This record gives sequence, structure tokens and C-alpha cells, in this order.
Amino acid sequence: MSEHTLSLLVDNQPGVLTRVTGLIARRGYNIESLSVDRTDDLAISRVTLVVGAEHTPLEQIKKQLHKLINVHKIYDLTNEDAIERELLLVRLRVSEKQRAEILEICKMFQAQIADANGDCLTIEASGNHERLAALEDMLRPYGIAEFARTGKIALSRCPTH
Amino acid sequence: MSEHTLSLLVDNQPGVLTRVTGLIARRGYNIESLSVDRTDDLAISRVTLVVGAEHTPLEQIKKQLHKLINVHKIYDLTNEDAIERELLLVRLRVSEKQRAEILEICKMFQAQIADANGDCLTIEASGNHERLAALEDMLRPYGIAEFARTGKIALSRCPTH
Repeated sequence: MSEHTLSLLVDNQPGVLTRVTGLIARRGYNIESLSVDRTDDLAISRVTLVVGAEHTPLEQIKKQLHKLINVHKIYDLTNEDAIERELLLVRLRVSEKQRAEILEICKMFQAQIADANGDCLTIEASGNHERLAALEDMLRPYGIAEFARTGKIALSRCPTH
Repeated sequence: MSEHTLSLLVDNQPGVLTRVTGLIARRGYNIESLSVDRTDDLAISRVTLVVGAEHTPLEQIKKQLHKLINVHKIYDLTNEDAIERELLLVRLRVSEKQRAEILEICKMFQAQIADANGDCLTIEASGNHERLAALEDMLRPYGIAEFARTGKIALSRCPTH
């Protein structure tokens, strides 16, 4: 276990995100990644955040988050076999000769070419953390010019019957 | 123009995210979405955030963000024709009869089935905001049980020659 994943349903209001991240930072935890966006209900946002596991467990933080008035639900997905996904955009500078190699790597990872012009190539890929880390490892030798990754989002699995 | 998009390169340290979101919240802006994760450089994270355009322009906020010691670069992608992507996970409860319809919708949007069991179906899709909003609209009548979306990430386009 190298990290903790929490998923929170919170009010979509100014300041709520700052209260959540402030509470976590004050306890000395670094937020490795965070994604927040509104849900299908405009008034409610879902925050998915990953913190390192150097401090264990998260019980104290979960208790304090529960007390925040704008936090409605907290799911701890750390030990759950959840569906986890993240999205990556990587811009490379590649020679014509390297292009075929890059396209092969994209094929292996079902990655798409999001943009291209001359020696500039922007690749888009989604998957779980391990999959995207492997793609990143394969692209790094070509020289990464720009890099953006969403934080992880996660939903618990469909219940078994 | 309905929203502003900023992309920041910041130190990957506890408290930095809180200082960034706190500065924005104190000026009364609501953060519509935010994604943060480390870049290919472990010490640097990229924060992509979207704020509503009820207040215009962002010059004051950009100036103040520039003054934060842990913020290294700020890209304002608001008026740029950037490559923008986000990722969606939606869980639906669907009858056997509805399944074929859902699969057809997935095909139209190149969405994938991330998980399925009995009447539970979790769909994964990526694309720009408009594309995912259209998918959400088509899925809503089936009854959305769970919903998670990464914030938007964005890179500027490859330069034209």
C-alpha cells in the first residue's frame, strides 16, 4: 500500500476546496493528486484525492473532514478494488524517423494523437495509474516537452450478486 | 466565453494547492474544476483550473498567483485554442432491454465499459468538455447512480510553421 485514495461529495461553492485541502495540509500530508468537478447534480462536486501513505491511517483526517459543513459524504477507496482512471496529455518533439516508434507505443497503450505539427506531437491516453506510468516511462527517452495529468478519479466496483 | 482556464506549474509540496485555491476563493471566484498531479518532474506539479467568467478578467488573480513563491509558471489558456481533455466515469443501473441502447451511445462517443455486473454498468469516456457534456445528456435519462469527472487538463497546441 503506497497511497490513500479518498472520494468526497461536497457543496459546489467558493472556499470548500480550500477548506478540504487546508485541513489535509495542516496535518502535514502532501496531496499527490486531486481532481474536482461538479457531478450530475450542479450543486454537488466530487473531490478525489490521493495522499501518500507515509502517515497511516487516515482516520483522524476522515473524522475532521466529516465535521466540515460542506462535506456530505466521504468514501475511502484505499483498500477497495475500485475502478480508477486518470488521463494524460504529453507533448513530445520527435524526428520523422522516431514517428513510427511513437505510433507503435501509442497502439500498445491505446493512446491517441491529440495534436501534431511538424516535429511536435501531443499524445492523449487514459487508464489506471500503473498503465499511464508505463506509457510515461516509454515516452520519456524521446524527451517530454510538456506534460499534464488529471488526478485519479475512482468509483467503487459494481456489487457482485 | 463562459469560463477561464489557467494552467500553473507549482512545487509539489504540502500547502501549495491550498495557497493557490485560497487566493482564488478569497476573491469570490468559484473553482468550477481543478486537476493537479505531478509532472514528469517529481518536484513539480501542474494545476489546471477552471473558474467561471462572472468576474472578468483574471489579471488581478494572475498577478497575485505570480507572487506566490511556489508558483513557477502561469499559462492563461482562456483565449487559446488549446488541446483540452477531461475524463468521465458514470455508473448506471440498466435493464437488460436498455443495454443495447447504452452500448450504441458508447459507440457514438468511443466510450468504454469499465465495469459491469448484473444491472450495474460503469462507463468511461474522455474528450473535451462539450463532448462529455453531450454524452452525459444522453445517459441522464437512464438514471445516473454515480458520477466522477476529472477536471479539465489542457496543453497549448503545437506551433504552426
